[in-house]
Amino acid sequence: MAIPPGVNEQDFRTALGEFESAVGSDWVFTEDEDTRLYRDAYSPVQNEPEEILVSAAVAPDNTEEVQQVVRTANRYRIPIYPISTGRNLGYGGSAPNLSGSVVLDLKRMNRVIEVDDKRHYAIVEPGVSYFDLYRYIQDRNLKVLIDCPDPGWGSVVGNALDHGVGYTWGAYRDHFISHCGMEVVLPDGELMRTGMGALPGADTWGEYRYGFGPHVDGLFSQGNFGVVTKMGFHLFPEPEAYLKGTVSVPARRDIIDLVAIVNQLEHAGLIGMPRYNTPLTAHFSEPEVAEILNQPFARSAQDLERWAQGNDMAYYRCELQFYGPGETVRANWNYAQRLLSDIPGAKFSLDHELQWPIAADEVEGLHKVALGIPNMEIFRLGTRPDAETLGWDGEMWFAPLIPKSGEAVLEAQEVFTEAFREMGMRSFTHPASTPATWMYRAFIFIMGFPVSRIDVEANQRQREAFTHLANLGAERGWGEYRTPPVFQDLIMGHYSFNDHALRRFSETLKDAVDPNGIISAGRGGIWPKHIREGRA
Amino acid sequence: MAIPPGVNEQDFRTALGEFESAVGSDWVFTEDEDTRLYRDAYSPVQNEPEEILVSAAVAPDNTEEVQQVVRTANRYRIPIYPISTGRNLGYGGSAPNLSGSVVLDLKRMNRVIEVDDKRHYAIVEPGVSYFDLYRYIQDRNLKVLIDCPDPGWGSVVGNALDHGVGYTWGAYRDHFISHCGMEVVLPDGELMRTGMGALPGADTWGEYRYGFGPHVDGLFSQGNFGVVTKMGFHLFPEPEAYLKGTVSVPARRDIIDLVAIVNQLEHAGLIGMPRYNTPLTAHFSEPEVAEILNQPFARSAQDLERWAQGNDMAYYRCELQFYGPGETVRANWNYAQRLLSDIPGAKFSLDHELQWPIAADEVEGLHKVALGIPNMEIFRLGTRPDAETLGWDGEMWFAPLIPKSGEAVLEAQEVFTEAFREMGMRSFTHPASTPATWMYRAFIFIMGFPVSRIDVEANQRQREAFTHLANLGAERGWGEYRTPPVFQDLIMGHYSFNDHALRRFSETLKDAVDPNGIISAGRGGIWPKHIREGRA
Repeated sequence: MAIPPGVNEQDFRTALGEFESAVGSDWVFTEDEDTRLYRDAYSPVQNEPEEILVSAAVAPDNTEEVQQVVRTANRYRIPIYPISTGRNLGYGGSAPNLSGSVVLDLKRMNRVIEVDDKRHYAIVEPGVSYFDLYRYIQDRNLKVLIDCPDPGWGSVVGNALDHGVGYTWGAYRDHFISHCGMEVVLPDGELMRTGMGALPGADTWGEYRYGFGPHVDGLFSQGNFGVVTKMGFHLFPEPEAYLKGTVSVPARRDIIDLVAIVNQLEHAGLIGMPRYNTPLTAHFSEPEVAEILNQPFARSAQDLERWAQGNDMAYYRCELQFYGPGETVRANWNYAQRLLSDIPGAKFSLDHELQWPIAADEVEGLHKVALGIPNMEIFRLGTRPDAETLGWDGEMWFAPLIPKSGEAVLEAQEVFTEAFREMGMRSFTHPASTPATWMYRAFIFIMGFPVSRIDVEANQRQREAFTHLANLGAERGWGEYRTPPVFQDLIMGHYSFNDHALRRFSETLKDAVDPNGIISAGRGGIWPKHIREGRA
Repeated sequence: MAIPPGVNEQDFRTALGEFESAVGSDWVFTEDEDTRLYRDAYSPVQNEPEEILVSAAVAPDNTEEVQQVVRTANRYRIPIYPISTGRNLGYGGSAPNLSGSVVLDLKRMNRVIEVDDKRHYAIVEPGVSYFDLYRYIQDRNLKVLIDCPDPGWGSVVGNALDHGVGYTWGAYRDHFISHCGMEVVLPDGELMRTGMGALPGADTWGEYRYGFGPHVDGLFSQGNFGVVTKMGFHLFPEPEAYLKGTVSVPARRDIIDLVAIVNQLEHAGLIGMPRYNTPLTAHFSEPEVAEILNQPFARSAQDLERWAQGNDMAYYRCELQFYGPGETVRANWNYAQRLLSDIPGAKFSLDHELQWPIAADEVEGLHKVALGIPNMEIFRLGTRPDAETLGWDGEMWFAPLIPKSGEAVLEAQEVFTEAFREMGMRSFTHPASTPATWMYRAFIFIMGFPVSRIDVEANQRQREAFTHLANLGAERGWGEYRTPPVFQDLIMGHYSFNDHALRRFSETLKDAVDPNGIISAGRGGIWPKHIREGRA
């Protein structure tokens, strides 16, 4: 039996007994075949000494059981790591930051407490997946849309706490901003409610986020100050219609005007999430284009643009999504075309229009999450043709935040493409790379670094490359918004203003709230005192 | 010379000397004629023993000076109370919670650091008023709108930190939600930046709010964990057009459908702030109507509705504000009429349409803040005819949060109107009262309780009434979102779930971050340890 670090076997056995009393012996797992399931399936340190393994897992059914488990953990100083559904793939999955931690698996707590489609909010437990919430809403014919990330099996609460994102309209796709009120089990086992949840009898827990006094909710996001057991979310009222149109522009530097105009549309709420892309990648394996891309960046960018124009191909595209009454989505699409026509050579296509309620056969081939329909189609990615040859069967996400401007996109294209060249790696970026736009007000320049379950050396190379690019980005002021556990100290280290004042502040809070350092040690780069001091 | 509580005169004199070294002797105020200016002009305890007075004021010019002042205060345990412009009238003004505190007056720090109208954000210091920010934008012809509360002299930072609100579109009018990134001087004088501000060289401080790791910003709102010296805000791109239309409905219970439909419009971003009102108040002094209102609530409601219908008058109105391209605002107005026509007897009027840029003469008589134009016209309120006879020359705001539903409005009308009757007071509510809608997702049922500069007994009666209504509201689950200092302990006491777990959590954090308890003791109902223990 694995023992958590800093705990003696006798105490651990006693604690396990108490866990069993709290949740029932069926829900405490210590056998390898069970605990192995909590390994990070996409771990970039798989089968290396740094790989993070768990000593046990406990799966409570309700808040009272969570409180009992946490009290026991606090008594015996057992490091615990709460997960919701544990589907945080590419960012650590269900594995903790500290090897030997006990996973507190909340996926049995999957109750939808309430969905209100007149006031447009939901209150859910952490085990509620996007599928669960969607089904609950569909079964009752409630007129609200959910905002979900690509894989629908993730936790609504867990994704929000990790600053996760989705695909629809406005701030609804910033899942933490759209949260409203929390219930939290604190490290001493005490139960706290925030916002209007703190006012007994209040029926506004899902509506007004602040309540009264300091607003503490942010501490529980990417943090380790407690175990969130309920959370409210604002929901988007089901719109009447959806319209998707695409604008194409011919020149590389058109991204500057394109972003400025699309920003204006988006920040005024006239479009949902815009999706930038380029049609050129489809031609990258053609010899002529491959040769172009093989040149130094400036030359390659120039030639690629010339090639695109010679072949009457757009350089960039941006898909614009409109939600609203039928008349409004068409008015907004007209307006978008009016503004975007200022870009010489801009072309437009109306891709499709839908009306709610949307029938299943209408969404075949469409990007369902943009319509608030959770699914698992993203995992088609896993079947890409080169997966087997390369031994790649997972990914870790590198996602630096860059300014929301075309100038920043041009700079990021060059900086990262040149960096890959210098490292002698196949580049994940190129002179037509476009930003990801999940963040309501920011761009990320996301890249999936492949990881392997079998090739340790390949993983080591990927980690080196990741580290190099993360450092390079940080030097330019581009930081990660989220990262796998193995990089969390590195990334928090980049947020270093005034000798890491922010981290030191968070550590001060952490020590006060969780003096035994039991909750999610290391998460977000925040370690409890005894481990911090052991390192220093 | 007044001395702060718990400080000896020698230490205080030394501290004042250090304050002078930090900011210059011109900017340290200890004379009565100066410190008197920091009294709460609307204090409900004016000229009573409980009135809060300040011992001194210090007005630094920049962040480094703030740090020096805070370090000195921490060394000598001087209670300090930062204010931005000090215009928080009705909620405490420039006065602290703890009498004898030194006010840290930040109004000299009035620099607009940056406004970006391609990425739509501003970064400002706490002394920047809405007027200042507006002028900066106008002078440079930047294409962004600000969201401001009624009096334009308030601080952009201060209002946001107090969970203050404005009048335009969507979440922009929740000024704390629309903030992005902070610079804070901590109680030990250390400088911290949050969000992307923590990443040296990042140009995304005004764009991406979270940065990496736990999100600590909320602690500095309605709290006392540090002195905010810079803050970023997302801004609304200047729209093309504005349209205001009004819907009128004939029956008292029409508020149920009216709110449900307006919620749908608002939460989908099709309208900006809706404004509910009733045309009936204009007739309340007519003898027939006055008699109707003099009856028990149920009868009065029934007769008032009958009177309104007999006189062909609407019972409620709701002004709908649309921002966007010309074609869109008309499409949305059409859609709103289509939905609202389901309410029998609903009538519509198109009030006005404007196009940006808006000329000064076009906004005469309009509600300028709805167009992002700061002004001081609200102070016309101060000249109401009964001010002199009643000796009322200030207000304290009572503003319980109720659910965003018509049912809750009907209940609140009755509960508060009956409560006023039982207290034998002229009621501030009636069977046609409507909710205030500044909060993006919540209703408040706001009432201005008059206070007097001369009539101590009148103030005492108002405080008793306020306390009674606050307790009555809390019993129904309706809590205050903000309150004058004299009521902050009472209100925080209402947020009592699990034996005041939230307050205890905040106190734990407070003690860790500010062990000497120097910053804004008592603000938001959070007291430092030595004062808490003295009380217990």
